Amino acid sequence: MPGTFESTTLLHILFVIAIIAEAMTAALAAGKREMDWLGVCMLGCVTALGGGTVRDVVLGNHPLTWVQHPIYLLLTGGAALCTIAIARYMHKLRNIFLFLDAVGLVVFTIIGCNVGLRLELPLVVVVASGMLTGCVGGVLRDILCNSIPLLFRAELYATVSIVTGVLYISGLTVDLNHDIVMGIAMLSGLTLRLLALRYGWSMPKFVYGGNIH
Amino acid sequence: MPGTFESTTLLHILFVIAIIAEAMTAALAAGKREMDWLGVCMLGCVTALGGGTVRDVVLGNHPLTWVQHPIYLLLTGGAALCTIAIARYMHKLRNIFLFLDAVGLVVFTIIGCNVGLRLELPLVVVVASGMLTGCVGGVLRDILCNSIPLLFRAELYATVSIVTGVLYISGLTVDLNHDIVMGIAMLSGLTLRLLALRYGWSMPKFVYGGNIH
Amino acid sequence: MPGTFESTTLLHILFVIAIIAEAMTAALAAGKREMDWLGVCMLGCVTALGGGTVRDVVLGNHPLTWVQHPIYLLLTGGAALCTIAIARYMHKLRNIFLFLDAVGLVVFTIIGCNVGLRLELPLVVVVASGMLTGCVGGVLRDILCNSIPLLFRAELYATVSIVTGVLYISGLTVDLNHDIVMGIAMLSGLTLRLLALRYGWSMPKFVYGGNIH
Repeated sequence: MPGTFESTTLLHILFVIAIIAEAMTAALAAGKREMDWLGVCMLGCVTALGGGTVRDVVLGNHPLTWVQHPIYLLLTGGAALCTIAIARYMHKLRNIFLFLDAVGLVVFTIIGCNVGLRLELPLVVVVASGMLTGCVGGVLRDILCNSIPLLFRAELYATVSIVTGVLYISGLTVDLNHDIVMGIAMLSGLTLRLLALRYGWSMPKFVYGGNIH
Repeated sequence: MPGTFESTTLLHILFVIAIIAEAMTAALAAGKREMDWLGVCMLGCVTALGGGTVRDVVLGNHPLTWVQHPIYLLLTGGAALCTIAIARYMHKLRNIFLFLDAVGLVVFTIIGCNVGLRLELPLVVVVASGMLTGCVGGVLRDILCNSIPLLFRAELYATVSIVTGVLYISGLTVDLNHDIVMGIAMLSGLTLRLLALRYGWSMPKFVYGGNIH
Repeated sequence: MPGTFESTTLLHILFVIAIIAEAMTAALAAGKREMDWLGVCMLGCVTALGGGTVRDVVLGNHPLTWVQHPIYLLLTGGAALCTIAIARYMHKLRNIFLFLDAVGLVVFTIIGCNVGLRLELPLVVVVASGMLTGCVGGVLRDILCNSIPLLFRAELYATVSIVTGVLYISGLTVDLNHDIVMGIAMLSGLTLRLLALRYGWSMPKFVYGGNIH
């Protein structure tokens, strides 16, 4: 049930924009930790491409995207490097980057679901594949920066990925037109994320003070 | 040298109980770090299923268990969620959970060894496969909670896994009855772990105060 | 474009020396964190063999080296254990270990590039394969010790790996003699690393104080 040529091309263009945006925000996180220039590059690559990498490694889906298309390594590493030069102006672009990050989240999710569908995995795993693709890059960034992954505490980030994935899969399962389903899923996820950012929505937290072991 | 139908079924039942117990204790760790509900779910899944995932990824043993049987994702995620509701009563069940965690450790180890045996790996790697399955879930939990993995400092945790694995492999190598060997290995490991917990046994620590680089 | 029997043997001998040296320095890091003896062993194995493991998992290059040759597990685990006994004398050997660590970096890099070349990957990915092999072990060590990876902040560590890889690939691409190219690449990388250590050279750091999200 593949999309039309147009929707596939659009998805690909959005993917390229999104990995560049992810690499640039990762570069700022690297700057917070005073990493050196090469560290900035590497953190950019890992954040932008890490989600898809973990997905493909877990699903045994070789060769990986960046192994087949090393241009993505150069693009994300290069974008992270450029960020060093323009960092001082980036707070003015803060809203644009938050928007691009949200676009990336839904685009990565759809792409991850498509990989799962192509491998004919169970639907629960297809949604998990979308979520791995959308969320794991940021988790790796946070681990490498030695902080607790934001994902586990942030504004509906993983939730948006699940909602997008479930809408997409549900639509395809009842045999609606692929491109329309994809558009609705992406717009719904994007809207939810932007509303969550605007109004500070978040999942309830679980606070536990007792002893574990 | 597979086990009988009965021993295989018993191992499977213990596996399901163990992943649920692991997911629930992981949920408490998530609560300590004030993660949100979805974070709790995810930490539960990663802790309960992460050991087997890393083992299969490292050994190239696709498809992974939870990709084939996504019910395990739902079970562990669901168990973690339920923990939020019953957390306040769980300190009363502390001993039960410590016991189930010990059961999980030896069950995961045996299952990991069986994967290694089926792939006809060298015996050292079979033991390593058991240890990866038994111990890595907890290491991932600790990394995601941003603490030094307990494994490297706790009461004979990894030691128990190695002892269980070595007993199991040794028994099978000298061609004893599979089910008896499995029973002895599991009971020995379980006893060792419970004694270590009861009497605070631990491996000697290596304390180094000099400069490294 | 394989090397002669002699150069392959030399590379292999240097590899064995390097993984032992890596395991021993990792053991000191474990001692800093007061890990127990088994934790010391495991951190030694992960640090020494983790780079190659991640490379092979990412490239889908099964079976892994230590699965085929479990002797490497025993060697590195054993070396880490021995370190506990001789730790008090190791500060006298500090320069030797820094030298062996530098040798390991270039040897791992060449071996990683060779894996990439054998799999006929794009040249950018061949260099990345060398860098993964050379640098990831230390990153895993730092994550497991709960510190920000030194790699992202240390004296030209990753840079040396890239320089070595690029020299090696460039030489082979223009069809020079394999052994000469390998020698030049390794000596250049080694010299750069030792000069960086001697004179405290490092990449410029990116320091960013603004808000990220």
